[in-house]
Amino acid sequence: MDEMSTIHAIDQRKLPFSFEIFKAKTIDDTCFAIKEMVVRGAPLIGVTAAYGILQDALNFKEENFKHFKERISNTKIKLSKTRPTAVDLFNVLDRVTKKLDPVKSVKENIAIIRNITMDIVQETIEECKEIGQFGNGLIPMGKSSIMTICNAGALATIDYGTALAPIRKAHEEGKMITVFVNETRPRIQGGRLTAWELYNEGIEHFIIVDSAAGHLIKNKKIDLVITGADRIALNGDTANKIGTYTLSVLCKENNIPFYVAAPKSTFDRKTKTGKEITIEERDEMEVQTALGINEKKDKEVKRIIIHNLNSKNLNPAFDITPSENISGIITPLGILKQPLAESIKQYLSKNNEYA
Amino acid sequence: MDEMSTIHAIDQRKLPFSFEIFKAKTIDDTCFAIKEMVVRGAPLIGVTAAYGILQDALNFKEENFKHFKERISNTKIKLSKTRPTAVDLFNVLDRVTKKLDPVKSVKENIAIIRNITMDIVQETIEECKEIGQFGNGLIPMGKSSIMTICNAGALATIDYGTALAPIRKAHEEGKMITVFVNETRPRIQGGRLTAWELYNEGIEHFIIVDSAAGHLIKNKKIDLVITGADRIALNGDTANKIGTYTLSVLCKENNIPFYVAAPKSTFDRKTKTGKEITIEERDEMEVQTALGINEKKDKEVKRIIIHNLNSKNLNPAFDITPSENISGIITPLGILKQPLAESIKQYLSKNNEYA
Repeated sequence: MDEMSTIHAIDQRKLPFSFEIFKAKTIDDTCFAIKEMVVRGAPLIGVTAAYGILQDALNFKEENFKHFKERISNTKIKLSKTRPTAVDLFNVLDRVTKKLDPVKSVKENIAIIRNITMDIVQETIEECKEIGQFGNGLIPMGKSSIMTICNAGALATIDYGTALAPIRKAHEEGKMITVFVNETRPRIQGGRLTAWELYNEGIEHFIIVDSAAGHLIKNKKIDLVITGADRIALNGDTANKIGTYTLSVLCKENNIPFYVAAPKSTFDRKTKTGKEITIEERDEMEVQTALGINEKKDKEVKRIIIHNLNSKNLNPAFDITPSENISGIITPLGILKQPLAESIKQYLSKNNEYA
Repeated sequence: MDEMSTIHAIDQRKLPFSFEIFKAKTIDDTCFAIKEMVVRGAPLIGVTAAYGILQDALNFKEENFKHFKERISNTKIKLSKTRPTAVDLFNVLDRVTKKLDPVKSVKENIAIIRNITMDIVQETIEECKEIGQFGNGLIPMGKSSIMTICNAGALATIDYGTALAPIRKAHEEGKMITVFVNETRPRIQGGRLTAWELYNEGIEHFIIVDSAAGHLIKNKKIDLVITGADRIALNGDTANKIGTYTLSVLCKENNIPFYVAAPKSTFDRKTKTGKEITIEERDEMEVQTALGINEKKDKEVKRIIIHNLNSKNLNPAFDITPSENISGIITPLGILKQPLAESIKQYLSKNNEYA
């Protein structure tokens, strides 16, 4: 964020074809950025929401605390309506607004929001680093093949990523990794964003269509699947990008380890099981179309229609992976093992930031 | 085929955006049409190959049987190299060429080829009708939801289709079916071709991204999955469009019936199990790009780049569904049940066309 309270974000709708900075000058711009997926990835949605509250606080020019609190409360509601599934959004909104103090001035309250926002940013970076350390322990020495879906990389967080952090760390240590990237229709976060990150890090990778994952997993081409998460319920049921559940079933069927990587903000203390999680249904236009460029050097991203125009499309953006399909959850404090309900309970008792 | 021995085929690369007839004037054009998927779908590949042999026979102007036989033999090799997985291609090529008779004139031998080709065309239509009758018996009265992948419809055969034949028949009988169509990346045969057929028949349907199948199957939105097949081994292992294996695993996990529909030409008498089946690896450009139109009324199909350009892509076009994942195979003579190895053996003993 700059002095004018404008939030600067890489426009992920345009990567990897064009690197552009989206400038959110107002809270409405910030809501648009989350809703339209200029920014995406559960941890980054959380961080952006924190900046959104700070942005709106900075733009408040009165001295009346009651009005300030009302304003922040409305902004919180506005931000909370942008996307329903990633719990980081709600966790961060609660955290960044819960210490407002009527005894202090508006200016002092803005400082409180700023401090918490900076804490969240710093923690997100540190937590991803730790996830990398612990997750790296799961990756064999020498050659191995890892599959992932969507983008749970630096672009989905602030740096390092969640699912990609162990891969980065293992690569740094000289392990010979090949990553199989599910392209992740309809928005191709795998083929556009994860592939772009891996390419820039010099990590060998292949993009596949999502439906090819089964063929590779069955034929023992994959040692390990790691995905990110949008919300983890108390029993370990995990909401993540549509297709994640399918990967977990394929791993179970073929005895391949299936891990989820997530920072603290992705655990939902209020949700007992996956049944309570709202699955976002996005615009069917996303399914009916594909986004890309005409030629190699093009920068302007175009949308083309790829389906029969008169047909209806369904677009559930997430699915729920049942706790029992998950080998473990890679967290900044270590790997949570089965039974997950128990290990999540212990884990959350050690973390009070989002309690 | 017209009098000039030109094969006329709907250009399936351009549907549903534009309805164009591809004219294959020479055997090279016909090979191109199969290889580049102007025509596709195992039964139609078979029929096209038969027409290819007939086309080349008609263009043979000498009277020397030995030369004629050599020519047909070379043409058979040429056609057999177009695509490796659909066994209909090889079965039909054997059938259409096996009755050549050195005692008869070249003209009479051409008549033999013509008769067998016409038999194959007629049988393919009849068999699909029968598949529709038997498959319809699996579809509940009243409301039901059926999922399919790729296109196993009229476009993949000559008429009716294989997987779509029971759906057509059930719809004719007034059953209230909703079809969930996997779009089938990378070439979108589901979103383009199956959706187009269903739309034209007035059958309710929704297109989904392939990775959304698991979410729908898990949440009991699907009563039945029916797919086509490209090759069925003697033990029941079935090669079909990439993603079919995954659907079978999802059905097994969630106790949903999973059926394969296939005519006689799709059974491979020479292959014991799926391990012996060659999986076609197609050009990675197909995965890196998407094909479509810019605007609603456009007819010209364009290809856009949708992945990070510097990344490699893998493009296995088929996968193998293990026999044990298949609830049954819908054939023109009835539904083959488990144990499939046994019922396939009995079934093939009744059919001698491709023996």
